[in-house]
Amino acid sequence: VGALRQPDGSVEWTLWAPLTKQVTLVVWREAERQSQVMTGCEGYHRARLTNLPDGTRYAYQVDGQQYPDPASRSQPDGVHEPSAVYSPERFEWHDAEWQGVPRDELVIYELHVGTFTPQGTFDAVIPRLPALKELGVTAIEIMPVGQFPGGRNWGYDGVLPYAAQNTYGGPAGLQRLVDAAHQAGLAVLLDVVYNHFGPEGNYLSKFGPYFTHAYHTPWGDAVNFDGPDSDPVRQYVIDNACMWVRDFHCDGLRLDAVHAIYDFGARPLLAEISAAVQAIAKEQTRPVHVIAESDQNDPRLIDPPEKYGFGLTGVWADEFHHCVRALLAGDNQGYFQAFGSIDDLAQAYERVFVYDGRYSSVRKRRHGAPIGVRDRSQLVVCIHNHDQIGNRALGDRSATYLSENIQRLACGLLLISPCTPMLFMGEEYGERNPFPFFCSFGDDNLIAAVRKGRREEFASLGFAWGEELPDPQAEATFESAKLSWAWPSGEFSGRLRKLYRDLLTARKKWRPLKDRQHTTARPLPGDALLLVERGTGDSLVA
Amino acid sequence: VGALRQPDGSVEWTLWAPLTKQVTLVVWREAERQSQVMTGCEGYHRARLTNLPDGTRYAYQVDGQQYPDPASRSQPDGVHEPSAVYSPERFEWHDAEWQGVPRDELVIYELHVGTFTPQGTFDAVIPRLPALKELGVTAIEIMPVGQFPGGRNWGYDGVLPYAAQNTYGGPAGLQRLVDAAHQAGLAVLLDVVYNHFGPEGNYLSKFGPYFTHAYHTPWGDAVNFDGPDSDPVRQYVIDNACMWVRDFHCDGLRLDAVHAIYDFGARPLLAEISAAVQAIAKEQTRPVHVIAESDQNDPRLIDPPEKYGFGLTGVWADEFHHCVRALLAGDNQGYFQAFGSIDDLAQAYERVFVYDGRYSSVRKRRHGAPIGVRDRSQLVVCIHNHDQIGNRALGDRSATYLSENIQRLACGLLLISPCTPMLFMGEEYGERNPFPFFCSFGDDNLIAAVRKGRREEFASLGFAWGEELPDPQAEATFESAKLSWAWPSGEFSGRLRKLYRDLLTARKKWRPLKDRQHTTARPLPGDALLLVERGTGDSLVA
Repeated sequence: VGALRQPDGSVEWTLWAPLTKQVTLVVWREAERQSQVMTGCEGYHRARLTNLPDGTRYAYQVDGQQYPDPASRSQPDGVHEPSAVYSPERFEWHDAEWQGVPRDELVIYELHVGTFTPQGTFDAVIPRLPALKELGVTAIEIMPVGQFPGGRNWGYDGVLPYAAQNTYGGPAGLQRLVDAAHQAGLAVLLDVVYNHFGPEGNYLSKFGPYFTHAYHTPWGDAVNFDGPDSDPVRQYVIDNACMWVRDFHCDGLRLDAVHAIYDFGARPLLAEISAAVQAIAKEQTRPVHVIAESDQNDPRLIDPPEKYGFGLTGVWADEFHHCVRALLAGDNQGYFQAFGSIDDLAQAYERVFVYDGRYSSVRKRRHGAPIGVRDRSQLVVCIHNHDQIGNRALGDRSATYLSENIQRLACGLLLISPCTPMLFMGEEYGERNPFPFFCSFGDDNLIAAVRKGRREEFASLGFAWGEELPDPQAEATFESAKLSWAWPSGEFSGRLRKLYRDLLTARKKWRPLKDRQHTTARPLPGDALLLVERGTGDSLVA
Repeated sequence: VGALRQPDGSVEWTLWAPLTKQVTLVVWREAERQSQVMTGCEGYHRARLTNLPDGTRYAYQVDGQQYPDPASRSQPDGVHEPSAVYSPERFEWHDAEWQGVPRDELVIYELHVGTFTPQGTFDAVIPRLPALKELGVTAIEIMPVGQFPGGRNWGYDGVLPYAAQNTYGGPAGLQRLVDAAHQAGLAVLLDVVYNHFGPEGNYLSKFGPYFTHAYHTPWGDAVNFDGPDSDPVRQYVIDNACMWVRDFHCDGLRLDAVHAIYDFGARPLLAEISAAVQAIAKEQTRPVHVIAESDQNDPRLIDPPEKYGFGLTGVWADEFHHCVRALLAGDNQGYFQAFGSIDDLAQAYERVFVYDGRYSSVRKRRHGAPIGVRDRSQLVVCIHNHDQIGNRALGDRSATYLSENIQRLACGLLLISPCTPMLFMGEEYGERNPFPFFCSFGDDNLIAAVRKGRREEFASLGFAWGEELPDPQAEATFESAKLSWAWPSGEFSGRLRKLYRDLLTARKKWRPLKDRQHTTARPLPGDALLLVERGTGDSLVA
């Protein structure tokens, strides 16, 4: 679906819009507006035009109203304005030598394009890549780039998942970044959001039944992945996943909160995404990683299809974070109530899932299942990520309230893990600027609702921070989140960064730390001592 | 949970009631009323009394109101009245020799206790068992017996799933029936309903969060199998399944509509039921069958736990019915729209699931997945069942509107299948009495709602039968459903029954028909010819 450049140079539009009998394609050919009724068949509407350069604006007109293309590849003027033709296959790549990064060598660095640099663009990331490579990172993970309202957003309010955010530099900017990353020796993972769409600029329901009343998510009606007319909705996200890997050369995807993807059918959507993406990986003979965020502690996600698993290559294991935070920072509200013992941390090392069938006092039920014997590189652990910082009322970073020694200990705990480690941008040098929630909606009612909702969310999570929350809509809040890049000058920062670099080097070179299978951990007599043994034969003590 | 007789002869009550601080156990000791505040701990309330015979009435008092026990084993006076102590282990069994029926020898006969005989009791079924054995049936499947309101109900409005229906003869009656069946050489499967509870006499919410708003079913809020405090709800149904197998010697269960059991957790409820029941089967060294009704065409249901399947032993495959009906009876409304070609029937023979990933015009999406190479005895097929007859407005039986030849052909089509065949009571002799929907609620608003709902259900299913529906609440409707047992005298009836018996004998004796793996089917030139080859080497033509 979308406006696709054909081999003969023409552009063919395909729109799935079963809810409407007639759709008019409106194209702005140079300054001239041209309209054409699309031909419809079984819910799909098509049109084809010749002699149109990339950048040509177009929109779909339904019942007299114009809307952007749900599969728009480019939104130069934002979520409410016409789409633009973009032909990703015309990009000139320089990464023919790129072989990808094997799963057991992944060291992920999560970054938010808008705040990673002062400029906040894809292009501005490029000069920073060598420093990440030097640090020992092997893959950057880019927070969602699907077009969202305004220029300030974490990315989870995107409404046009095929269009790389215009304020970041649009699709060409993303291609330049991926190309540069590959040349710098770094893989690129992209965070994609298939469990919901943002609240502003979401015109999907004008076209088709993208949503279902059958299940509820924190964002309202669930995306329709198993109800009537769900096949094209499923295909919409499957094709999206494939596009990033095939046309943008991404090395993998991070699937946002898959526990909010409701699909009771016999062929799970996640398995279909995985199969489609891995088919491309196979064709291109490079590893492609599909990593789910899930709070379900469910090994089926990463089991192979032969075992009726979903075949994903990895899954986040957030409980490691919770154990470390509860122990080192003393967090004890909300979901942290369920963590905090040194035994939990020992289990997180040995068996990854702390709740692998145990009763959770927070969920008030038994939770999870054991992952069993399995390559730990399938599990992604962290001590910081965008959510864990942003879920604090002020979005304040641990460098502002934890001692240097504690921060260094946390770094050690992370990098001794057999699992795949993930850093959040700035963590490596103890960034002190916060990472609060921010947005730039255009709708006043929505802005008020977000301000109110943010407060209520903290209450419902069980967090009782008393401080006044930063205004998510204020530009200053966004600006405050930008990295300081202050590590070269700061003494503490430089030391911490060196520790990260040294430990990442050790993970690469030292056999017991390269081992992704063998880990034992047991609390030692005394208050806060944990013995972690890695590898076979060799051992070390943390 | 429930009132359980202890080794020392005393009775111990355990009630899960986290929503209430104090529960009073009320016991009627002879004519005297005795009250005792139960001791509570972590949501469970307990009490113990000595010198109480079976039959002693008791109730739980919460906020001044008395309610029956959610895990009552006996409700001598119906759903609204006190429960009675019943000790199933005191029953004297005569089935020590019973070895069970292996899955590949199952021939299931579905019966409804209330209408199978004029008396409508468990005991009245017993004298009919030899005739079923002689017919070639190997297992009876009893429609749900969990206590329901009044005396007339299919069983799907039960509210006390541990208490065998009083009007059928209560728990002792069921034990006598199972004991007699085993002595007659027949297995007993019990239909159990874990996806919803009935609308009248449902006091569960007085005690605990048995329901969740998170998912909706045709009956309202779903049963809470994955929300907060869901562990005891899960245990409630797991223990129930175990009770029927252990204390009532049942040879298996038929799980009603598992597609309405919502559980997104990492340890699916169905897998836990299966594991618990099979542990008992292993201990008792006899086969126990756990067969799901599901419309999802999902092979994971019957895959083993090692493959992350749910480990059920079987699943209904209703599409065989739909194909046969659409071809032989010309049904073409509602879900029958999706069937009707001879190719579909050929697929039903060869691959069982007709929709194994194909687009369904009725569901408006692709549906199902292939079952692959697999013992066909895991799939249960029929040409009649309670739903397929009762889902007709009049509940009329095919003998009243299909010719003798067509009925004989349908019988042949069923019994040539490699799958496990299931007959609905009376089918074998062309019963002409209907099997309409009936109930006997006590609440006038509910009665009116059921009458209205029944009409609307037919409309929503897409069935446009114009006739006036029988009144579900009328006693005459129930009476009309009772079997005539007219086969010995009727000429046609006798011939049809002989055909069933002869073909069931052939399935038992003739090697190609005993084969549960090899079946090919292909339409022959001409309008309505289908070649079905069974077994290897030998073949036959239908």
